[in-house]
Amino acid sequence: MVHSSPAGRTKTLSILGSTGSIGVQTLDVVRDHPDLTRINWLTTNRRIEDLERQALEFSPKGVVIADQQSAETFRANTRFKGRILSGHAALEEAAADADNDLLMSALVGFSGVRPTMAAMNAGVDIALANKETLVSAGEPMMRAAATNGINIYPVDSEHSALAQCMVGESSTAIERLILTASGGPFRRHSLQELQHATCAQALKHPNWSMGSKITIDSATLMNKGFEVIEARWLFDVDAARIDVLVHPQSIIHSMVQYVDGSVKAQLGLPDMKLPILYALVAPERVATNFERMNLADIATLTFEAPDYERFPCLRLAFDALAAGGTATAIVNAANEIAVAAFLQEKIAFMDIPRLVDAALNKIVNIADPSLDDIFAVDAETRTFVSSNIQA
Amino acid sequence: MVHSSPAGRTKTLSILGSTGSIGVQTLDVVRDHPDLTRINWLTTNRRIEDLERQALEFSPKGVVIADQQSAETFRANTRFKGRILSGHAALEEAAADADNDLLMSALVGFSGVRPTMAAMNAGVDIALANKETLVSAGEPMMRAAATNGINIYPVDSEHSALAQCMVGESSTAIERLILTASGGPFRRHSLQELQHATCAQALKHPNWSMGSKITIDSATLMNKGFEVIEARWLFDVDAARIDVLVHPQSIIHSMVQYVDGSVKAQLGLPDMKLPILYALVAPERVATNFERMNLADIATLTFEAPDYERFPCLRLAFDALAAGGTATAIVNAANEIAVAAFLQEKIAFMDIPRLVDAALNKIVNIADPSLDDIFAVDAETRTFVSSNIQA
Repeated sequence: MVHSSPAGRTKTLSILGSTGSIGVQTLDVVRDHPDLTRINWLTTNRRIEDLERQALEFSPKGVVIADQQSAETFRANTRFKGRILSGHAALEEAAADADNDLLMSALVGFSGVRPTMAAMNAGVDIALANKETLVSAGEPMMRAAATNGINIYPVDSEHSALAQCMVGESSTAIERLILTASGGPFRRHSLQELQHATCAQALKHPNWSMGSKITIDSATLMNKGFEVIEARWLFDVDAARIDVLVHPQSIIHSMVQYVDGSVKAQLGLPDMKLPILYALVAPERVATNFERMNLADIATLTFEAPDYERFPCLRLAFDALAAGGTATAIVNAANEIAVAAFLQEKIAFMDIPRLVDAALNKIVNIADPSLDDIFAVDAETRTFVSSNIQA
Repeated sequence: MVHSSPAGRTKTLSILGSTGSIGVQTLDVVRDHPDLTRINWLTTNRRIEDLERQALEFSPKGVVIADQQSAETFRANTRFKGRILSGHAALEEAAADADNDLLMSALVGFSGVRPTMAAMNAGVDIALANKETLVSAGEPMMRAAATNGINIYPVDSEHSALAQCMVGESSTAIERLILTASGGPFRRHSLQELQHATCAQALKHPNWSMGSKITIDSATLMNKGFEVIEARWLFDVDAARIDVLVHPQSIIHSMVQYVDGSVKAQLGLPDMKLPILYALVAPERVATNFERMNLADIATLTFEAPDYERFPCLRLAFDALAAGGTATAIVNAANEIAVAAFLQEKIAFMDIPRLVDAALNKIVNIADPSLDDIFAVDAETRTFVSSNIQA
């Protein structure tokens, strides 16, 4: 299944979160296109058996295991001969390795902020799958990207679509961004039904196979709200010029409307490997044998406006973006705690927006926050929401 | 209704066929964006009242009236103070005027070949609405474009869409072109019903308001076949890599599939003013107040494979393109005569493909034709088809 034509010189790639959904798919792409990248660091939190297999296949310079106990187990049993680091600080070391050309930032949630920022400050380009970093710390991260002259290649299918639609176009010609949303598993559920939505139901995404955190975020539409915030930072387009459009088939991955009224869209079968590959080689393209889309077979694409009443998380994300400061960091932290509690069946589905809303009302918003401010607000929000769940 | 921000210096524009559908809409665009262009020549065949009004409004250097008798009437009555030329050769003079930066080539049919070629040989860029020129004489025209280093900006909504999707992409990354087709007024007609389709029915296009020739070509799908041929020449993509996809809503104007499997589409409400404007300023964009597309309101887009049995003209066009040489010129000439006869209710709807097929079987195909060969074959085909109609 080797079918790449190398787009240029081989890039040195490290993957933060190589055993997660995006990490595994990134390595699938790397395997199929061996000339594109050389793997430098792989990292996991606790999935040491997967990491062992990956390390033996891809022979990175080293691996990082964030969880110390898992690292001890790994060291005692591994056949891997490269460097083995452990602990969260080691993620930053791997991310900022001077040999990295590109870092796939695929940790889940706020944990990605420090290592991604470390990579940027070391001049490493970022393939960004970890949207929560921009949700929490968009302004300082984009400042760091500009200061260090690094590129951020989006990995989310929506943002990859937007980037693909913008190739060769002037940024001043952009009028609106139109982010498509599948609508998730509860698109047709009534507000009443949503009150009793179970974790098992929420984990059944209609189109995309993803990690559990993002799958719940897709069910609440918080994921789409996060994508709006991410788009605002990646493309420097304010929230008033970003629309969300529900498109259940997930074939049109997003669209850019230009000042002349013309709209460009990127389409394809739902497969994260395509945006992952594009992030590795953009703006070039590399031949693949991915299954091709056939619209005559698909036959029908449908579109509808999002419902902010049944999906208040989407509105909360827009509101936080409009409020600015640390509001989006509050939303992200509150959502992480709430989603974790929902996955543990400690709270109901509609408690997620309720807790996020409560946090937004409770935690003081800090304008023009430093990264330290954001970390402080993140911690404060987590404590607040956790105490609300236990109460 | 002035709302342009000028994209650069003012271009000197002449319009071949300024009183036709595309010509009138081009002048609508010019009126709304006065900084973009200065009108140099306007031309008509017989519509001298329309030309008078246009000439007084836009004050061109001169006008051309192809029909000699109409020209005499015009000269005797006009208040226009500029130059007045007449006859078909004068179209070439206006097209090749050294002051032209851009020629809108919007004559109908084969008549556009000589003046468009004259403009190219004079180094004038072409905004090409007259697809029959590329259908008949694609190879010599593209050679002339290359030799003279001129740009051809497509005006057809489909080819404008393809060009917009290709901006910033490498031509080597293109895998397929997907031309969308409304399917025309007879999309749901049975073969039996098509035998008795009337001229009035054929002239009712569901989405686009156009001239009568192209509207009939849209009903037979010959127009889509011509667009396939046009795309082959404009974008140097062979016919095996061009698909036609029926899309009745005419919202997606066409698509480009890349070697990685990614597809880019250009979308918008059906309005020729957008591709006309884009042809004037491409690859820049100019702000407009054209109505914006709202996919949530449109709600549903559908797609189906074309039916070559009910619409044999589409297959004849593909076959002629595969045959090469003068085969597409034969198809074009036979189709022009047959459509004119159908518009005069001399023949039945399904006689159009029958006559084209007969011409393709009768007229000898000339490989690597010169422009003279193409003119000879065009004339021979017209004679043959006309005699078949009278018989």
